[in-house]
Amino acid sequence: MDKEMNDIGGPVRSPAAEGPEVRRSSPARLFDSGTGRAVLVAVVMLVTLVGAGGGLALARDDTAAESAGQPAVEAAAAARSAERPEGCVAPDRRLSLYAVELPKDPVTNQVRLGYGLTPQTASYPGPTMEMIEGECLAITLHNQVPAATLEQLRTDPAHPVGVSLHVHGVKYTQQSDGTVHSDSFVPPGGSRTYFWFAKPRTATSPGTAGYWWYHDHVVGGPHGTQGLRSGLFGGLVVRRQGDPRPDRTYVTVFGDRQTINLRRSAEADTCDPVNPVPGPTCLVAKLGERVEFIVIGIGDDMHTFHVHGHSWADTRTGLVDGSKALVDSVPIIDNKTLGPGDSFGVQFVAGDSVGPGHWMLHCHMQFHSDLGMSTTLHVLDENGQMPPHAGGHAPAAPAQGAAAPADAHTNHR
Amino acid sequence: MDKEMNDIGGPVRSPAAEGPEVRRSSPARLFDSGTGRAVLVAVVMLVTLVGAGGGLALARDDTAAESAGQPAVEAAAAARSAERPEGCVAPDRRLSLYAVELPKDPVTNQVRLGYGLTPQTASYPGPTMEMIEGECLAITLHNQVPAATLEQLRTDPAHPVGVSLHVHGVKYTQQSDGTVHSDSFVPPGGSRTYFWFAKPRTATSPGTAGYWWYHDHVVGGPHGTQGLRSGLFGGLVVRRQGDPRPDRTYVTVFGDRQTINLRRSAEADTCDPVNPVPGPTCLVAKLGERVEFIVIGIGDDMHTFHVHGHSWADTRTGLVDGSKALVDSVPIIDNKTLGPGDSFGVQFVAGDSVGPGHWMLHCHMQFHSDLGMSTTLHVLDENGQMPPHAGGHAPAAPAQGAAAPADAHTNHR
Amino acid sequence: MDKEMNDIGGPVRSPAAEGPEVRRSSPARLFDSGTGRAVLVAVVMLVTLVGAGGGLALARDDTAAESAGQPAVEAAAAARSAERPEGCVAPDRRLSLYAVELPKDPVTNQVRLGYGLTPQTASYPGPTMEMIEGECLAITLHNQVPAATLEQLRTDPAHPVGVSLHVHGVKYTQQSDGTVHSDSFVPPGGSRTYFWFAKPRTATSPGTAGYWWYHDHVVGGPHGTQGLRSGLFGGLVVRRQGDPRPDRTYVTVFGDRQTINLRRSAEADTCDPVNPVPGPTCLVAKLGERVEFIVIGIGDDMHTFHVHGHSWADTRTGLVDGSKALVDSVPIIDNKTLGPGDSFGVQFVAGDSVGPGHWMLHCHMQFHSDLGMSTTLHVLDENGQMPPHAGGHAPAAPAQGAAAPADAHTNHR
Repeated sequence: MDKEMNDIGGPVRSPAAEGPEVRRSSPARLFDSGTGRAVLVAVVMLVTLVGAGGGLALARDDTAAESAGQPAVEAAAAARSAERPEGCVAPDRRLSLYAVELPKDPVTNQVRLGYGLTPQTASYPGPTMEMIEGECLAITLHNQVPAATLEQLRTDPAHPVGVSLHVHGVKYTQQSDGTVHSDSFVPPGGSRTYFWFAKPRTATSPGTAGYWWYHDHVVGGPHGTQGLRSGLFGGLVVRRQGDPRPDRTYVTVFGDRQTINLRRSAEADTCDPVNPVPGPTCLVAKLGERVEFIVIGIGDDMHTFHVHGHSWADTRTGLVDGSKALVDSVPIIDNKTLGPGDSFGVQFVAGDSVGPGHWMLHCHMQFHSDLGMSTTLHVLDENGQMPPHAGGHAPAAPAQGAAAPADAHTNHR
Repeated sequence: MDKEMNDIGGPVRSPAAEGPEVRRSSPARLFDSGTGRAVLVAVVMLVTLVGAGGGLALARDDTAAESAGQPAVEAAAAARSAERPEGCVAPDRRLSLYAVELPKDPVTNQVRLGYGLTPQTASYPGPTMEMIEGECLAITLHNQVPAATLEQLRTDPAHPVGVSLHVHGVKYTQQSDGTVHSDSFVPPGGSRTYFWFAKPRTATSPGTAGYWWYHDHVVGGPHGTQGLRSGLFGGLVVRRQGDPRPDRTYVTVFGDRQTINLRRSAEADTCDPVNPVPGPTCLVAKLGERVEFIVIGIGDDMHTFHVHGHSWADTRTGLVDGSKALVDSVPIIDNKTLGPGDSFGVQFVAGDSVGPGHWMLHCHMQFHSDLGMSTTLHVLDENGQMPPHAGGHAPAAPAQGAAAPADAHTNHR
Repeated sequence: MDKEMNDIGGPVRSPAAEGPEVRRSSPARLFDSGTGRAVLVAVVMLVTLVGAGGGLALARDDTAAESAGQPAVEAAAAARSAERPEGCVAPDRRLSLYAVELPKDPVTNQVRLGYGLTPQTASYPGPTMEMIEGECLAITLHNQVPAATLEQLRTDPAHPVGVSLHVHGVKYTQQSDGTVHSDSFVPPGGSRTYFWFAKPRTATSPGTAGYWWYHDHVVGGPHGTQGLRSGLFGGLVVRRQGDPRPDRTYVTVFGDRQTINLRRSAEADTCDPVNPVPGPTCLVAKLGERVEFIVIGIGDDMHTFHVHGHSWADTRTGLVDGSKALVDSVPIIDNKTLGPGDSFGVQFVAGDSVGPGHWMLHCHMQFHSDLGMSTTLHVLDENGQMPPHAGGHAPAAPAQGAAAPADAHTNHR
């Protein structure tokens, strides 16, 4: 395997330079409390890949083969088939992803790693990726995690030290598998370009539209268990032409060890009730907005994703339309079990019929939720306010309902 | 939050006074052994809400606002939006639900609580609720569980003492959430009215038809873990216009701790083989009857619902119809995994092709079934009899197959 | 219950004598390395039941009733209803199945039992059965497992000693249930005929097409826990008229205790990279072949079935077609959670877009995969070769990626 063909010499073009819309959320306020006028912001970083089809073919890929000293035409063909999935003639888009070490977990003192579109914005979960069926994406992963940290996370000295990018659902060759046996990982200080193809549906292929995720597959061991445990994961949504688009997208990663996005209890819901800043630890929406959740399971355990007051169709998107027979066959649910590796997405209208309020979102395994595997979807009213009669206070607020005088409820003694 | 608006002054009208058909099962025999003529009885209490649409609007709700000392119109509007989900102009039906303490579990000596339409009929699972999409239900919960019992079930003295009603799938506001943070629970001796709306499908809402459940969310802790463990749960089915109706409905709650309806082994199947009385611990049907199961997961563990000899479509109802492409896409299953919080329903024809017999119904996790997480669906013949050649004896009968002489099987030695 | 009616006197006709096509895989090479020409072989034993409808009615069944000394007509009717599911007038096909003891597990030294179409070919998983909706199958099980072994596997001396055949999904009466309470098991040295009917879809029955499994239900205890743990299980696929047929079928049984087909790590993937022999421990296909997996859960734990680089529709077959609304509603997945007792099947095109390579297939529960619950789908190129650039080496190969020099990846330091 020729490494030169797989990596990109020179600086990688920034996404902005190539035209995609990169929306970032932080730090933006959901609404302007001074005027009461809502300011819509993206909740997570969405890399919207608007161009499709392959018009951005990069000649550099062919020249890379040439520089390896093989006849250009033959080498290019070989390189293409080994490097890129069939259907991806050339990447429609290129972006960089950085794996970095973050401050240790404030509660458990565990190592925290994160992916970011820049080293400064790395987080767990990493940036949410968005593709449309038909697109091909080239992602250059830069491993900036110190070698000492990676060595500390492995127990077997024969296991290599590195970070990788393994993705679910889309198409990629062995060279983009992100595994040890395929030599498709990145040692400390190195970089490597991975190619993802969101193959459309064909007669023999079901397509790749769906709610997926990406993660490391080599930190600590051949299944990336320590990379996952440390934070090297993120969501990916592949849309199909015509799919409804949400107003907001949140990623909730269930596990490892009874956590949501590796946090429990107060750490899982850091919303400022006056100025909520949407993000992985502040799930907030206005009444009537279409909210999308990308739900991912990691770790060793089963979990269930449950939201109070809201429900969805158990389909590819959480929505259902079509013939009466089809609509009638689809279960409507408000609790969905998932195991490690599973991912699904749902879209629903915030506060639909139920109004604003602090709506609990938790794992329904009782000992998990009791341990703090619980957070809140804060649904504000049309004006971006939480009405006082809409549910008292947030579950995580200091003044708990626990303190409410019992006689407030007892007019029927 | 104004409590006066949320509670109903004066005695709650009994369901019977308002016209709904309340069918009760016990103690009724499935068939008259003297004449051999089958007597069809309802298996569980089904509160059939025949009226739909809101014709039973109760003026009392508006006057309640008035009595709170606010301008009537404005107060009523505010109360309605905070108290009732959008679409529920006024309840179509009202009923009372009592939470009471029951005798301790005969095997484990654990505390047992139950919901009942009357205090005398409380049970675990509680009464099965039935709604039709479009209906709005007002349920007044009376907490008759002694305060001392509720205090005993909590470990944190800061946690409030009370019982609540939290429901899955249908629509409700924060005031009917049944949670601590929303102050929507009932202290000992008190009562509170919860509003449930079985919202129909719209362009942006998938509808609420489905197999759901209700449960306490506050006993012991903020997730009601001790309430669930003690028996405060029940099934809810929301039907869509045109849905096929079953001849019998059973509720099987899988968990807590490897139990079915909190019972194991002989406790889970108490059927008298001569005069079976249908109920939560006696699953019986006649050949050809359409049986419906509402299957609910509680507790901390995963389980699987498996029935011998019977199978169903993995759809909203267990049935499937429509185009060949649709029918061909749907999996047929006889074993379904569920986690805590999950609920689903299936309908199938008892004994379809397989005839009468003692058909095992169990969790397929081996150590669960070995621990007694197993019961039996007894399918009788057309005459309500168990033919002697239809399967020997029930699994739980004293004279076990274990005692059958080995040579009865050995004509091919 | 009259045993004589249920067993078949005299030697059972061999499947070959009755016309079915029995394809066997071992030991056959996937491709002829000398010529480079592929030789297609069946991966597992597929008992293809080509005849449908009941034309092969065997008069012997009626005469069996006569020999029992009852009036022939009445006895035949009674026997038929108790012995055979409705719709199975007479078996379309008959075959023999042998339960035998195999060499102990080479790693754990556990007892290993297996089913086989002959005693010499018994294995775990047992032979893969294939039926078409409408067919009825008579399987005579011969228990050749030594009584001493079965006694050793039970802990309760009151539990009977025997082996049985319990099947999922298809129709059978209590006499073919394979359970203790129905006296439908086989003591050591005995035999018993089980009748399975692949009932087609009707107005009230969803049909039986699907991916199912069969297993013992009596070894060790009333749920067959020790039979399952020892290897007494196999896959069953029931096809519907018009279903696409795969080029290869593999069975992967997830569990017991973090195993695939009761093996871990190197034991789970014994493929010779030069001359791969397809089988339960060598999953191999050529680029473009339609591969089918029958995935089964056993034991006590949840697992997830994940394949790198490949995905499928979450439908009855893994394929989806029909209206846009239907196609758009179906989730595409590459990771599916399953519990004990669950079984599902998927079909996909090997190497679709992603090309040849060593594609990992593993449980995504991290501690399971780290324990060795992982194997490989080896996708060869069109010529039956593994191209050198297609992914380095197999995960289980001695020379691991772990040993690759780190600087091979570091052109961007």
